[in-house]
Amino acid sequence: MKGKLITFEGCEGSGKSTQLKLLAQKLDALGVDYIMTREPGGSAIAEQIRAIILDGKNTAMCDECEALLYAAARVQLLKEIIIPALESGKLVICDRYVDSSLAYQGIARGLGEDFVASINSAALGEYAPFMTVFLDISPEQAFSRKHGADRDDRMEQLGMAFHEKVYRGYLSLAEKYPRIRRVDCSGTKFETSDKIWKLFKESGAVAKDK
Amino acid sequence: MKGKLITFEGCEGSGKSTQLKLLAQKLDALGVDYIMTREPGGSAIAEQIRAIILDGKNTAMCDECEALLYAAARVQLLKEIIIPALESGKLVICDRYVDSSLAYQGIARGLGEDFVASINSAALGEYAPFMTVFLDISPEQAFSRKHGADRDDRMEQLGMAFHEKVYRGYLSLAEKYPRIRRVDCSGTKFETSDKIWKLFKESGAVAKDK
Repeated sequence: MKGKLITFEGCEGSGKSTQLKLLAQKLDALGVDYIMTREPGGSAIAEQIRAIILDGKNTAMCDECEALLYAAARVQLLKEIIIPALESGKLVICDRYVDSSLAYQGIARGLGEDFVASINSAALGEYAPFMTVFLDISPEQAFSRKHGADRDDRMEQLGMAFHEKVYRGYLSLAEKYPRIRRVDCSGTKFETSDKIWKLFKESGAVAKDK
Repeated sequence: MKGKLITFEGCEGSGKSTQLKLLAQKLDALGVDYIMTREPGGSAIAEQIRAIILDGKNTAMCDECEALLYAAARVQLLKEIIIPALESGKLVICDRYVDSSLAYQGIARGLGEDFVASINSAALGEYAPFMTVFLDISPEQAFSRKHGADRDDRMEQLGMAFHEKVYRGYLSLAEKYPRIRRVDCSGTKFETSDKIWKLFKESGAVAKDK
């Protein structure tokens, strides 16, 4: 594999979108050859699956169905978009990936990490992320920052107790997988962005002299 | 579990729809308490998933995505429709179920029976079918019967070599799982229907004196 896959993870409102925009500005300025994509979605078929997962009317969806839909969207994005980009040597930045399923469906929904890992085998083997940036901010802090934004999709409708479980899930995943790097987000967005860029250089995702 | 789940399997054009109609007439006439459903689909969410799977424009769909979408639609149908019906003592008749995924995605697509079984664990454990009726007719014979019908969905667009693999897949599953009963479909539709009804009585799916 010539390229590298870097994934971004965090609770709702952890600032992923903001950080990804700041990161894109740096990568653009330096002329790095990269693509940025998101989950669930990122390809025509995966976006169709995304629409079912996030539809606020689909309240009858069982947890296993939700987990399998995320896995289906993920493997389609992987095969159709991520692998070709990695093979052509690009840096691939993905907003959420397999750790979201481990934290949300495996741990917070209670399906178990083993089941979620088994249905996501493609994303945990050869195509596991090179590095995962975990934006470490508690759900209370995250939601208080996000109070003015839209919060009406099916995942965001879930209560604070659920998001606390997700957060603790991420912390336990970070203990387990050395590829997951915690980034303290208690400072300003620019301070957080600087910490992320340091990780990019340290890990070799971008050249150390950038 | 008070009710029984009976599934129908077979290649495209094997006559499942015709046989299910004839079966429904018998069950209606006898006043049996049953529901009849189909895969993929059978519930509002599962029908949304069905639309993605069968859309002829979704030619970029990878095999793993297809298998995961079938598993997602199946577990949703199981939790939302089949389990409540079984718990209330109903006979549940399902047009396709987990053996379709084992034959089509596991064997014919080459994903392997183990992977397909792992993503369908809910449908192979406690909720495995009580009996599976396999309509045994080769793809050549089946397609020659169906020549006048619409054949434009994504699964039916696949070539004859693929459907031959599915057929051989079903034969090997029938060797492996005693619950799968082969029904020779070389006679008239009424002869086939009588054979199926005999299996229903022998197995105890309906009372032996019916």
